[in-house]
Amino acid sequence: MAEKIIYLDREFRPEFIDEMNQLAPDYTVKTELESADIPHVEISLGWNRKYEKDLLASDHLKWVHSISAGVDALPLTTFSEKGILLSNGSGIHSQSIAEHIMGVILGYSRGLFQAQKAQLNKKWLGTAVHYQALEKQKLLIVGTGKIGKLVAQKADNFGISCYGINTTGHPVDGFIQTYPLKELKQIISQMDIVVNILPLTEQTKGLYNERLFEHFATHTLFINVGRGDSVKTIDLIQALDEGKLAFAALDVFEEEPLPKESPLWEMDNVLLTSHIAGLTPDFQNKLMAIFLKI
Amino acid sequence: MAEKIIYLDREFRPEFIDEMNQLAPDYTVKTELESADIPHVEISLGWNRKYEKDLLASDHLKWVHSISAGVDALPLTTFSEKGILLSNGSGIHSQSIAEHIMGVILGYSRGLFQAQKAQLNKKWLGTAVHYQALEKQKLLIVGTGKIGKLVAQKADNFGISCYGINTTGHPVDGFIQTYPLKELKQIISQMDIVVNILPLTEQTKGLYNERLFEHFATHTLFINVGRGDSVKTIDLIQALDEGKLAFAALDVFEEEPLPKESPLWEMDNVLLTSHIAGLTPDFQNKLMAIFLKI
Repeated sequence: MAEKIIYLDREFRPEFIDEMNQLAPDYTVKTELESADIPHVEISLGWNRKYEKDLLASDHLKWVHSISAGVDALPLTTFSEKGILLSNGSGIHSQSIAEHIMGVILGYSRGLFQAQKAQLNKKWLGTAVHYQALEKQKLLIVGTGKIGKLVAQKADNFGISCYGINTTGHPVDGFIQTYPLKELKQIISQMDIVVNILPLTEQTKGLYNERLFEHFATHTLFINVGRGDSVKTIDLIQALDEGKLAFAALDVFEEEPLPKESPLWEMDNVLLTSHIAGLTPDFQNKLMAIFLKI
Repeated sequence: MAEKIIYLDREFRPEFIDEMNQLAPDYTVKTELESADIPHVEISLGWNRKYEKDLLASDHLKWVHSISAGVDALPLTTFSEKGILLSNGSGIHSQSIAEHIMGVILGYSRGLFQAQKAQLNKKWLGTAVHYQALEKQKLLIVGTGKIGKLVAQKADNFGISCYGINTTGHPVDGFIQTYPLKELKQIISQMDIVVNILPLTEQTKGLYNERLFEHFATHTLFINVGRGDSVKTIDLIQALDEGKLAFAALDVFEEEPLPKESPLWEMDNVLLTSHIAGLTPDFQNKLMAIFLKI
């Protein structure tokens, strides 16, 4: 029997690899591919451009599972022509992304990130910490799909007022009001918290730019767990420096890993996470459960 | 008209003092007292032992508002004898304490505190972050009063299973099951998260000690927002060092401010906050609203 390979585009923890080996014992799991491996790859978890041409030339690739919810960067037409199954983690990841967002909102509002920095300097902050009540805060969720709805439901339970943005402005359960994307600029100044969960499209590329940041309220907490390319990083840095908004929690970036020379690393009003919002501990289980049923 | 003083036992932000001056214009607000001030103090927000004897000797002290929810350290008998009104912030603070607790749980479970430390070292963690799903986690809330019930309600909305401890084990709405305090040792090993919200009593002083930590599951997240004296700090440090539990988020301490020489400051599996869980931005408003009605 020929070798069958599962290619992983990310490093996973050893216990996950073990679990995967148990669930799919006749597959070899690899995180780097030699050219001799290419014809044996049947499954790709994540998609790496450096193998794209070779993998698409092979007849054995059966299934590509996009690790993030978005699939806009993938060669969708070719997948379709070759009958390659494409799946994505939007269902698997919604819960963890909603928890990540609520963790950021609560951590920021209760001064926990500031407290941790003070701890590292052995400084007792006393009451000199920034904190705010969540009740009656206005949260704008940009993207009212599965994840957005879940965030609205969690946030509502803390007394937060939830507003939504989607393409047409159609109403969505759980949102006090929704607006079309083209009205974003008009309403964003009324918001205390802005969360971007949009996929990348022509309309959303570079959406958060200098012109939009001009309209933010200066106390705004901005969270991006959508796509890095939706935010013009250089404009965001300038806006944060000039106090156009108060704080940014970023999980996705125009370039990942975030380059060492990025000013974001050292900014006091920025929390950086390494594209982790969607990670769930039983990701492989759920994934392999899906695979083994196919 | 003689001077009337409101004594504040903590530093508050300038805008709060301004607001207080507006709400009570015929009072002078002081955060330090000279001996000549003592007879003019009518209201004490918080209670400072160094003024205790003098303030109790005066006939003008009308009202002591305990800033924390607990009042066990105050001279309750004398207050009662002298007709000094005593109030505490338990109602005012419940919401913010519940938000603090949920912020800690979510921040820990989504790897946000670890991510922030990595950021300070300009390290891109990738997926090498500790994260866990909240669904089905078992949360033990030690203290099923107003705050405990609010925490259970918030946690339940993330799919967390909530168990409670109170003195007698009487059932409380919102908890799957409650146990009497004397059974704490028996059930604590089944819990993923343990939150202490108990007031200080004979039974709870030093409750979290070496013998109890022996029974914790090694992956436990422990949160103390109750009283510092409920935890034997030296035993907790040892238990954390030996891996008897995974992480501690502490807002209250046996000695506050936490001494500079405490090993807690530098422990990687500890988040310290400076007795801030109960802080709410409109504390003074609510407080003065109460006062002006009396």
